[in-house]
Amino acid sequence: MKIELENVKPAEIEKRSFEIITEELGDTHLIPGTEPIVKRCIHTSADFDYAKNLMFSEGVVEKALDAIRNGAVIVTDTQMGKAGINKRKLAEYGGEVLCFMSDEDVAEIAKKNGTTRAVASMEKAAALDKKIIFAIGNAPTALVRLYELIQDGKLTPELVIGVPVGFVNVVQSKELILSLKDTPYIVARGRKGGSNIAACICNALLYML
Amino acid sequence: MKIELENVKPAEIEKRSFEIITEELGDTHLIPGTEPIVKRCIHTSADFDYAKNLMFSEGVVEKALDAIRNGAVIVTDTQMGKAGINKRKLAEYGGEVLCFMSDEDVAEIAKKNGTTRAVASMEKAAALDKKIIFAIGNAPTALVRLYELIQDGKLTPELVIGVPVGFVNVVQSKELILSLKDTPYIVARGRKGGSNIAACICNALLYML
Repeated sequence: MKIELENVKPAEIEKRSFEIITEELGDTHLIPGTEPIVKRCIHTSADFDYAKNLMFSEGVVEKALDAIRNGAVIVTDTQMGKAGINKRKLAEYGGEVLCFMSDEDVAEIAKKNGTTRAVASMEKAAALDKKIIFAIGNAPTALVRLYELIQDGKLTPELVIGVPVGFVNVVQSKELILSLKDTPYIVARGRKGGSNIAACICNALLYML
Repeated sequence: MKIELENVKPAEIEKRSFEIITEELGDTHLIPGTEPIVKRCIHTSADFDYAKNLMFSEGVVEKALDAIRNGAVIVTDTQMGKAGINKRKLAEYGGEVLCFMSDEDVAEIAKKNGTTRAVASMEKAAALDKKIIFAIGNAPTALVRLYELIQDGKLTPELVIGVPVGFVNVVQSKELILSLKDTPYIVARGRKGGSNIAACICNALLYML
């Protein structure tokens, strides 16, 4: 078998990828304004399921862009998610990416309370006096805790990106976020997602600015 | 709709997830010895395609474990992949994770040569006097360059994890690695993969030790 490489210049690879995705999506319906996010998730995963499983609250894209413009910080539930976000671009608007998962106090509180570190991380974030975008790609427990904090009136996030991946309470944790009335969200319904997807949704928003 | 959370203790979540994956795999054939890797890829992505698309060269798992035991380093093509690998566990065997993608000299050489930074990173890695496991989850250009270096006798890696994701030359770059006769590889055939998959294959190996 002869293996032939397509001759695409380095700077053109992403553009060409998005053309292929657009082509293969054909007339799949995407919510107007969300296309760059959906396509970047497909770009990140080569998984066209994201054309169907991504749920957007009303007007969430504009709200999220405003939050970033106003200096919102992004809180992730993995170092990997943090690593994947374009921090230079975010810094242009005064934001930064925070991840508390490796913090000693978080480990201690989680142990004391018998929770996951992700839960303790969310509590630490909720105590910040900042506009916050949560980008949750791993821990359903983080998402459940965010839901509780929001329901209790202890947290009003600018946006919840709810895309944990997996098999235990992942589906349910996302449904909890989808049930919130006044919280802007972007959620990958079902089992799929990941830190890479959380990061790429943040980047899609940053590149829309 | 009532959303009911499954009552699983934090420490049990991963175990329960692997049980569900095993259950749903049913009698899907997996190559003996590769099960922990395949299942961890599914765990990381909630995508059962990995039960079929992962290709293993003959005896690769034992070779990879030996390489780690002998202090091999892991070279990634993204900071995100580096972030996702259990560096503490790797350090127990004397290894470390290296990623040259943000290095200034790599950016300069890439610019000078009109290549991607990923290509320049692979060249920098090839010049190391170390046993190397390459964990490539993003850049097909990195994989193509590795293929060339191996063909030219300039590089003898312990293992090539070839799991870039995407649409331009991704499929082809993986087929090049699959065509190598004497190079241990783990490759996700087709378009799928990612830095998360690259990291999780490394972790699956580490957890088998």
